[in-house]
Amino acid sequence: MVRNILITLLLFVSVTLNAQKTQYHDAAQLNVIGKAIPTSRSFTRIDTAAYRFNDAVIEEFACHSTGLAVLFATDSPFIKAKWLTSGKNASENMTAIAQKGLDLYIRQNGEWVFAGVGRPQMDQGPDYASHKSTIVKSMAPGRKECLLYLPLYDRLDSLFIGIAEDSYIEPLENPFRHRIVIKGSSVTHGLAASRPGMSYAARFGRDNGFYCFNLGFSGMSKLQKEYAEYLADIEADAFIFDAFSNPSAEIIHERFDAFVDIIRAAHPEVPLIFMQTERRESRNFDTWREDFEARKQAAAEEEIKERMKTDKHIYFLPSDDFLGDEHIATSDGSHPTDLGFTYMLESISPKILKILRKYGIK
Amino acid sequence: MVRNILITLLLFVSVTLNAQKTQYHDAAQLNVIGKAIPTSRSFTRIDTAAYRFNDAVIEEFACHSTGLAVLFATDSPFIKAKWLTSGKNASENMTAIAQKGLDLYIRQNGEWVFAGVGRPQMDQGPDYASHKSTIVKSMAPGRKECLLYLPLYDRLDSLFIGIAEDSYIEPLENPFRHRIVIKGSSVTHGLAASRPGMSYAARFGRDNGFYCFNLGFSGMSKLQKEYAEYLADIEADAFIFDAFSNPSAEIIHERFDAFVDIIRAAHPEVPLIFMQTERRESRNFDTWREDFEARKQAAAEEEIKERMKTDKHIYFLPSDDFLGDEHIATSDGSHPTDLGFTYMLESISPKILKILRKYGIK
Repeated sequence: MVRNILITLLLFVSVTLNAQKTQYHDAAQLNVIGKAIPTSRSFTRIDTAAYRFNDAVIEEFACHSTGLAVLFATDSPFIKAKWLTSGKNASENMTAIAQKGLDLYIRQNGEWVFAGVGRPQMDQGPDYASHKSTIVKSMAPGRKECLLYLPLYDRLDSLFIGIAEDSYIEPLENPFRHRIVIKGSSVTHGLAASRPGMSYAARFGRDNGFYCFNLGFSGMSKLQKEYAEYLADIEADAFIFDAFSNPSAEIIHERFDAFVDIIRAAHPEVPLIFMQTERRESRNFDTWREDFEARKQAAAEEEIKERMKTDKHIYFLPSDDFLGDEHIATSDGSHPTDLGFTYMLESISPKILKILRKYGIK
Repeated sequence: MVRNILITLLLFVSVTLNAQKTQYHDAAQLNVIGKAIPTSRSFTRIDTAAYRFNDAVIEEFACHSTGLAVLFATDSPFIKAKWLTSGKNASENMTAIAQKGLDLYIRQNGEWVFAGVGRPQMDQGPDYASHKSTIVKSMAPGRKECLLYLPLYDRLDSLFIGIAEDSYIEPLENPFRHRIVIKGSSVTHGLAASRPGMSYAARFGRDNGFYCFNLGFSGMSKLQKEYAEYLADIEADAFIFDAFSNPSAEIIHERFDAFVDIIRAAHPEVPLIFMQTERRESRNFDTWREDFEARKQAAAEEEIKERMKTDKHIYFLPSDDFLGDEHIATSDGSHPTDLGFTYMLESISPKILKILRKYGIK
């Protein structure tokens, strides 16, 4: 009886609050985290005026909001968003929420708990770049500390966060420790994650309280020297590499040493943790793919092991268990889903944490 | 050295075979499985001329190819497909591969092993209903036994399978045993599965060798009598229900008994296994949702437990562990991803198998 009265009261309060007008705040004025080096545009992970990659696709990806998040606190009973991306559709192996949506977590007893998603516009046509969504509503009164992940695989031209007219919103201090750079392919980019906060890089950061920078470049991560030059400029406590997913065996042999040389010149003793590329499911029956991938993996192992002989701060993580053994961990034979990332994190997290502890990173 | 010569030879043979012309075969002439009751259209799961649902959305969903698959054998080194769906885009919480793509498995030592996906057209515009994709290529010589899952969340108007000009293709006998009907909501429909073969219904069937029928109807599964009348007509060894995800507490109380009465009149002693609806992540902070969902779950439990007093062939599976406890199992707070389905199957599979064994279903 008392419970029912309380519920009714709570619902009445919720409805009343939801009927309130919405005030929108520019998210750029809050605490935008996830840029390894500051950029002039609010939601761009790399400044392509400062760093040139000599490739239109790489420069497009550099402008993605991949790995960025907005930290803020509010006492609003609801959180809405209006945002602008490119008008592109997600590719066929990913969700639009991951590509150009938003993913909100609220801190509860020190844990970031999923609160809701910003659902992007999905109608067809080139002009559907403008999105509006209620992320969460009918919340109990009180201050909420919020972590809002931005689109994984799209440009974010603007973002406004909507709260109740009589509520406050303010930047929240970045609670993540250390500076860990994760450089890689589409796997790191988070292509087949279901939501922006579900990339393995975001999960590794959230799970362990680490400040991670997502430098995943889908299909374009081929040990180019331009990336190494960018990485050299980052103030970093550790680098994690998914470096062998995109290049062929030939490219790995050709470029690996020069790539590491550039980073080492700037960071002589920072741990460089290289993951072997996953054993793709697309190898199961395709003999061409089997050969291509096996040669890639062999080249990676050969180069790394040679380098480890003279560099005691380089580490190599095997990938045998990244996709489990039930053929259920990818969206298309190559890209790990949230399930694939779970397997992968179960494999790499304890190994990486053990390495990082040696450097006082914990 | 010998290995390198062999690889070169294999690559040459692969390239030669891939350069061969492609012959296309109508998949409707192969073995299309997954229809609980035969339908006049090749890839339609329910015949809406024979069964009326008095709702345009339900009738649209009834025409989806959800849960259907094509069984065939071929000695072609590659498998391609041309197919026609509606021109709709996937909703923002699912991949286009799951919505309107194809998902191929090849039998290896008695196990169905993932072989490749049919990638649908993703360009923008209403006319992109026509798809063409190479699912797998460069396969070693020999007969392949194939299981090709059809689009989960779209109409399939036609499907042609492409093989090499001098290869054969023939229907493959259905290896799945017993007849298990799975009726439910978007969770059963497989909305946030990454591929058509990754719905929990498809995985439960594939993992256990059972012949399962997917009757998931996203958002529309509200214990309507029209469904019960259809279910009554199915020759079935067991029914599994995700029946409490869509209806409100009020609807559950109002319709549950009548729904079961209709099925029981036709199937007096067939096991009816009802799953509690998952504890949605959208409840985490939304007090309105929390109340609505808690009342739904209470109503479901109350109705089921009352009915179990007089019907000893009704079973109830709790859902507490369906989504794990890390807030990482859904694409949007409601829809389990492949990871969510993994948690769910870990919970329900042993319980369902134990029940089914009592009825000689194993």
